[in-house]
Amino acid sequence: MASLTGKEFSVYRPKEGKVIADTVTIPEPGPHDVIIRITHSGVCYTDYEFFRFNAPLALGHEGVGIVEAIGSAVTSLKLGDRVGGGFHNDSCGQCNYCTTGQDIWCAKRTIFGFGGYNNGTFGAYFVGKEGYVHKIPDGLTSADAAPLQCAGATVYTALVDTLKPRHRVGIIGIGGLGHLAIQYAAKLGAEVVVFSTSKDKEQEAPGFGASEFVLLSEPESVKAPVDILVLTGSKYPDWSKFLNTNVLARRGTVIPLAAPTQGPLTLPADKLFWDGYQIQSTLVASKAQHNDMLEFSARHGIKPTIQVYKFNGPETIESVFDKLKDGKVRYRAVLEF
Amino acid sequence: MASLTGKEFSVYRPKEGKVIADTVTIPEPGPHDVIIRITHSGVCYTDYEFFRFNAPLALGHEGVGIVEAIGSAVTSLKLGDRVGGGFHNDSCGQCNYCTTGQDIWCAKRTIFGFGGYNNGTFGAYFVGKEGYVHKIPDGLTSADAAPLQCAGATVYTALVDTLKPRHRVGIIGIGGLGHLAIQYAAKLGAEVVVFSTSKDKEQEAPGFGASEFVLLSEPESVKAPVDILVLTGSKYPDWSKFLNTNVLARRGTVIPLAAPTQGPLTLPADKLFWDGYQIQSTLVASKAQHNDMLEFSARHGIKPTIQVYKFNGPETIESVFDKLKDGKVRYRAVLEF
Repeated sequence: MASLTGKEFSVYRPKEGKVIADTVTIPEPGPHDVIIRITHSGVCYTDYEFFRFNAPLALGHEGVGIVEAIGSAVTSLKLGDRVGGGFHNDSCGQCNYCTTGQDIWCAKRTIFGFGGYNNGTFGAYFVGKEGYVHKIPDGLTSADAAPLQCAGATVYTALVDTLKPRHRVGIIGIGGLGHLAIQYAAKLGAEVVVFSTSKDKEQEAPGFGASEFVLLSEPESVKAPVDILVLTGSKYPDWSKFLNTNVLARRGTVIPLAAPTQGPLTLPADKLFWDGYQIQSTLVASKAQHNDMLEFSARHGIKPTIQVYKFNGPETIESVFDKLKDGKVRYRAVLEF
Repeated sequence: MASLTGKEFSVYRPKEGKVIADTVTIPEPGPHDVIIRITHSGVCYTDYEFFRFNAPLALGHEGVGIVEAIGSAVTSLKLGDRVGGGFHNDSCGQCNYCTTGQDIWCAKRTIFGFGGYNNGTFGAYFVGKEGYVHKIPDGLTSADAAPLQCAGATVYTALVDTLKPRHRVGIIGIGGLGHLAIQYAAKLGAEVVVFSTSKDKEQEAPGFGASEFVLLSEPESVKAPVDILVLTGSKYPDWSKFLNTNVLARRGTVIPLAAPTQGPLTLPADKLFWDGYQIQSTLVASKAQHNDMLEFSARHGIKPTIQVYKFNGPETIESVFDKLKDGKVRYRAVLEF
């Protein structure tokens, strides 16, 4: 097989409200590099956010594809392997975070949105690092596996270390993250309550594993307090009003995902204090949890509800961004290359 | 010994800006009741807060004294025992919180400030419940043990389940809580950094166990990020400005004590998200941790710096409240009865 090094392909960048193609070349792989031919990529709301802010980067961070070249030191992957990745792309391997399975917090981490000017999963090729390129279990199709690389990893990580089997877990929002969070929480053994602004989603919630549906505007109607509240939607509730209904049990945990662009997080200090509430922040996944998430998903048949779009250049991405902006994606968009 | 039942004594209540004496009688002890003759009581900022808000209660919740009567079912205490308590006074004993050592979160808990109209540790007698009346180890004087019943329990609990030996712990404020928090964190094995607005407290910090002193207005001068930040002062810093200096390590925990009257807790959502910060709420102590705290304090020679006031009626309390309000107590006031 001919060397891929030097082969030209396109990445896709934000440019003042448009998505543009930019030609780059496949580099000579470094010792730990893994060059992936992308077959599918999820489109995440975070791609849209970076597009909206005109960030200098190659878009796409939920990639799945086939290993086409590996560096000299790579031992855990081989040509032809089906793999995924794209958000968390490297860490130092030596610091306390890295040596204790918390490598997503490494000071030298490489994550989507910070660097990666010529490397995104909307391109035909993606250059990953061994450890941050994850084998896809046979039980998952590539299209289904793509959104798991960020959305799946995000909600699995948020839940897995906090949730106890006896817990009631509240998921705020049935959307790209929420419909996966419901599935993970249910399969991890919890009783799942969905909070949503859309009454019309009540029919869908049990199919994902929820046993109770509550309108976000009526939290006091919950049958019993929940122990964990995962915010997956793109807007905060009025935390003071919401928490003061006692919808969250004492010593409960709030996990606000999708928070960074929502402005300050304003919380009722007195309620937190007297009821012992915890606020927990998580970010996609460290590598071990990413692998666990894929294995758990395959074993339990957890998969995203997807809309697949055949990729035809920048317009395809722009059109999906329009749908994301309008909340029209049910529930994750996947580009097929 | 004659029965105490029916004996009259005074409790002390807020009444529109004054402290007044009110005569009550010692009740017939219920099966689990423990009647304590109070010899010492700490005066806590929380007493002052409830005084300020004119709350309908008997003041005082850091009591130490001698057991003078016990109920028929009491097995762990006997007449003459030296004991303490006063903040967390009962829980149901049967719920999941109670059966897992988290009884401070019990829905049926009795805590200072909520109930206790005729029962406070500024009175000559206090009626406690077995389990929430704690033996004082021989190594602690009664005067020193008094402030540990709330202040000590609060900072010990905040630290003990979160702190790891490798951690750098930041204590914001050297005051009633802070000077104890420094001692516990140091004896629990952490490296302790003190953040204070008072340059003149820099000399004192090492004596409590701190190895670094940082002006609160110059967090960027910290030698390395801390893993835990305990807010012990009565005012929030500007969290956005403070946290954005990277004074807190990734995946670090903020523990805002003394929060309830500070108004909303406003946090920089983006910083929390990208750096994985946790906000942890704790409240004084569950009973097992309270006992652990006392044993740990005695073994390590941890004690509050106190100012002792001989109790001479309501004026003594009012005069200590004045000092607390003005930040003039170094660092805990104790009433001697």
